[in-house]
Amino acid sequence: MMPADINKLLAGIKTGDRIALSQAITLVESIKSGDQDLSRKLIGNLTNSNQAIRLAVSGSPGVGKSTFIDAIGFYLAEHGHRIAVLAIDPSSAQSRGSILGDKTRMSRLSRHPNAFIRPSPAGGLLGGIATSTYEASLLCEEAGYDVIIIETVGVGQSETLVRHLADLFLLLLQPAAGDDLQGIKKGILEDADLLLVNKWDSHMKQEAERTHAAYRLTWSKSRDQVKLISSLEDIGIEDVWESITFLLKETDSQLKRKEREIFWFLENTRRLMLKYFLEKNSAILDNLVDNLKARSINYSEAIENALKKICT
Amino acid sequence: MMPADINKLLAGIKTGDRIALSQAITLVESIKSGDQDLSRKLIGNLTNSNQAIRLAVSGSPGVGKSTFIDAIGFYLAEHGHRIAVLAIDPSSAQSRGSILGDKTRMSRLSRHPNAFIRPSPAGGLLGGIATSTYEASLLCEEAGYDVIIIETVGVGQSETLVRHLADLFLLLLQPAAGDDLQGIKKGILEDADLLLVNKWDSHMKQEAERTHAAYRLTWSKSRDQVKLISSLEDIGIEDVWESITFLLKETDSQLKRKEREIFWFLENTRRLMLKYFLEKNSAILDNLVDNLKARSINYSEAIENALKKICT
Repeated sequence: MMPADINKLLAGIKTGDRIALSQAITLVESIKSGDQDLSRKLIGNLTNSNQAIRLAVSGSPGVGKSTFIDAIGFYLAEHGHRIAVLAIDPSSAQSRGSILGDKTRMSRLSRHPNAFIRPSPAGGLLGGIATSTYEASLLCEEAGYDVIIIETVGVGQSETLVRHLADLFLLLLQPAAGDDLQGIKKGILEDADLLLVNKWDSHMKQEAERTHAAYRLTWSKSRDQVKLISSLEDIGIEDVWESITFLLKETDSQLKRKEREIFWFLENTRRLMLKYFLEKNSAILDNLVDNLKARSINYSEAIENALKKICT
Repeated sequence: MMPADINKLLAGIKTGDRIALSQAITLVESIKSGDQDLSRKLIGNLTNSNQAIRLAVSGSPGVGKSTFIDAIGFYLAEHGHRIAVLAIDPSSAQSRGSILGDKTRMSRLSRHPNAFIRPSPAGGLLGGIATSTYEASLLCEEAGYDVIIIETVGVGQSETLVRHLADLFLLLLQPAAGDDLQGIKKGILEDADLLLVNKWDSHMKQEAERTHAAYRLTWSKSRDQVKLISSLEDIGIEDVWESITFLLKETDSQLKRKEREIFWFLENTRRLMLKYFLEKNSAILDNLVDNLKARSINYSEAIENALKKICT
């Protein structure tokens, strides 16, 4: 992509051109140096109104995240909202074909004119998953989406990043008899703003109710923030949205968004710095790898040597 | 800790002193610069025999990882093996008190004289979780543990690291009717060396059998590598161990371990380099954060500025 194309892309995004928005997200996800320069130019020229609501939706595999996003997204789209969904599942890069997968999984939402669904590929080891997700959310906002849903899995590290992306964190829970609290780690429970016990339907109904009751008793936050829902049968979805708007009224969104900007500035700068220094010192590192292979130095000596040569 | 203590620590580890081993692992997990220097000194002086078997055990929350590790660990300990368990659950840092938690979860193994259980705290965003886990495994090996079990969660990013820690990757699966393949991402399935359908007991028995049959049909690897087990009732555990020894005979462990050493050399060097450059440039970054707060620059300009000043 040429620098001149950036303005065209920006204009396309603002007029709601989905292809332009997709291309722009691909650009901010790119790890090529040239693309990253263009990406910063693009992001630097956004209005950055910071008015969109960002919701993180998390939960263990199989809990029904896609079905829930389909249900609430469709409800909101039908009520005039414009919905963007960013899926940052860390394993999506490996499963391939996830674009088609997401479209199938969110069947009603993906066909709605007010919706935009985008799976973000997983990044490398260095938090790459979500660094571009922040920028992708800025682009969706510029394109006029007023509710941005960020989907992730509910098991730890990715939630640390998600907390810095979203205004509210919705955690979906599986109906589970007995050891209700076993599946999800406490730390994640405490991060959540709403606990949604899903699958309140068919043969799961009673277990869902028991799970709901158990979390209302044991969770540290308000019991009104624990909900019973059926994404499959659209039960409780409107109530979830009411809770979201209520909770948002109580938080200082502007402060939260300023902190978010600072967090992602530091994250992205770290990532780009590391990339620069790795490339600059690649000959030193390659040489040490050769020495390790030849067993002329050991593991600790290799680290020692690298630091001596690079960090001076 | 003083540099002179390193030799004492090393001597303690070699004589099987658990407190010395624990202290050494705490040292390699420390992020203080002084500790990291000492840690490299310690690691550089290990025999590094590379004879221990390293097994990664993964699976979604609630699938029964701890119970499985308790069962196979106890079986091996009773057969004269010495077992070390390293838990690298990314959320353990948040759940607090995880040491006690692990001891309760692995009740038989934690009381066995041949076993050592160590929960590793979660690191930062930069893969910190497992960089010290590699070194912790070297320390366990030095202390005479011949089977090292690394526990993690089965949902993506951490598995990329775990593949570089372990000789074999065991994935536990939940008995689940119908959508058997939904819960776990394909990419992770393909990484696994053994699929263990757990909870082949009580009311889950039939579903476990259906799940087992489904994976045997659909998984790309040998159907003999899909097993039905009950960790709770010690069923199938011996068979799992036989498969492990069979698979290990087929792999070039020495080559794999050399690659592992190179991988972790690069990972740790990256992490230490980044830390160095962040500290060196902290005044520049603090200043840009102040400018962001004051809104005198925007997000992209802040990144641009940081790179201009730091990467030259």
